[in-house]
Amino acid sequence: MTNKDSERPLILVTNDDGIKAGGLESLVNMLKEVGDVVIAAPNESYSGMSHAITVKSPLYAKLVKDKPGLKLYKINGTPVDCVKLAINVLLDRKPDLLVSGINHGTNSSISLHYSGTVGAAREGALNQVPAVGFSLLNYSHDADFTEAVKVAKHVVVSMLADKLPKGTFINVNIPDVHPVKGARVARQSKGKWVEEFTERQDPRGRTYYWLTGHFENLEPEAKDTDEYFLNKGYAAIVPCHLDATNFNLLSYLKEENYEL
Amino acid sequence: MTNKDSERPLILVTNDDGIKAGGLESLVNMLKEVGDVVIAAPNESYSGMSHAITVKSPLYAKLVKDKPGLKLYKINGTPVDCVKLAINVLLDRKPDLLVSGINHGTNSSISLHYSGTVGAAREGALNQVPAVGFSLLNYSHDADFTEAVKVAKHVVVSMLADKLPKGTFINVNIPDVHPVKGARVARQSKGKWVEEFTERQDPRGRTYYWLTGHFENLEPEAKDTDEYFLNKGYAAIVPCHLDATNFNLLSYLKEENYEL
Repeated sequence: MTNKDSERPLILVTNDDGIKAGGLESLVNMLKEVGDVVIAAPNESYSGMSHAITVKSPLYAKLVKDKPGLKLYKINGTPVDCVKLAINVLLDRKPDLLVSGINHGTNSSISLHYSGTVGAAREGALNQVPAVGFSLLNYSHDADFTEAVKVAKHVVVSMLADKLPKGTFINVNIPDVHPVKGARVARQSKGKWVEEFTERQDPRGRTYYWLTGHFENLEPEAKDTDEYFLNKGYAAIVPCHLDATNFNLLSYLKEENYEL
Repeated sequence: MTNKDSERPLILVTNDDGIKAGGLESLVNMLKEVGDVVIAAPNESYSGMSHAITVKSPLYAKLVKDKPGLKLYKINGTPVDCVKLAINVLLDRKPDLLVSGINHGTNSSISLHYSGTVGAAREGALNQVPAVGFSLLNYSHDADFTEAVKVAKHVVVSMLADKLPKGTFINVNIPDVHPVKGARVARQSKGKWVEEFTERQDPRGRTYYWLTGHFENLEPEAKDTDEYFLNKGYAAIVPCHLDATNFNLLSYLKEENYEL
């Protein structure tokens, strides 16, 4: 399957919910029709791990499935670790596409910053591999991924036929409606999380805090954002890049004498 | 120190090397002269944690130092957890500035994506708090932070006197030279990590991998990047934003029929 003469595209798959997640299974069942698939995914859930890497302990990769056109590696690391290990060690050629997901739960707007699913896609882009992350707006273990898979297939086929600029990755969120109305290219909405902690007491009387809270869209009137289209029943396709520079501020900081 | 009538600015401080790091101590010794300081920092090193949050276990915040103008909370979470808990729970007003660092080691170019130091600064921006992360290009435990503190003081004083647009954060890297030549506003350099893993065998004969590797600047000729100025002996000041959207690609994806 990593034969250089193969005409089928090589698709690297990962996620942040772990190798047993329903979203991964649904995704892979579709991708097998499109290309040769190598899954390199975490052994357990790594939700909220963003672009984290494992620096304090070593990584093990166990090949747990090896069929024609489909390999599955279980890795004791973050989604980004999985992508790095696959591209650098496990695969004998660079994949044609990296697909991350399908995540159980939203990664729209600013949630992209916390997301292991999106982190993995960003790591693909850092390695010059076209990459996409998919997320369904339903957190439940037994969510129905039928509509999400339809959207994912369309985007995957489009990306394989296309030549996106290097360093690009795409963040796709799919609403939990049946049927999904369609898919729209959008920009990332501005948002924030509010009421973020629940306070409790442990049996020894010490206070502890669970991270919780809910999302608030800071641009409810805007009609070109991911949040807008998701609320209307469309999947939202957000092209992303690796450059965090705020170019509008470069000259401002110079004028305001930030330089020494 | 969280008195609303206080004229001294309230500065929230965190890092990703943990409360015992020399970089944190050097930074706080300087910040005490500038404002009232609340440190909310991890109990141990959280290097490479990016924008990760803790979702599977609760957080404890222990007040381990409480002097006039200086409080220190030790938290069993990531740098981003520390910022969230401080702003939402520990502080009784929004801080005037968030300062993260001084990190032991570089966070220039794409290293910003993996950095807990920068993740914490980004989280400040997500909470509408002006934020800056500082990193010294020296990983050693007993690095000399004298020059880095000089740069940090200049940037901190500039930010407190200024009104940066909401959602902005600044990534500052300081070269390990004495003296530092100055500080320059720059854009994030394109780069990649190469030769990323060291392979070994454990006593039971299983192969494992340590993440390692070295950085390669993909724009060695460019004269406006953080890497360029760092190599010339200047600190690099990169203004960053929260929006990952690649606006150049929005219309392209529409034309290429990514929509459904």
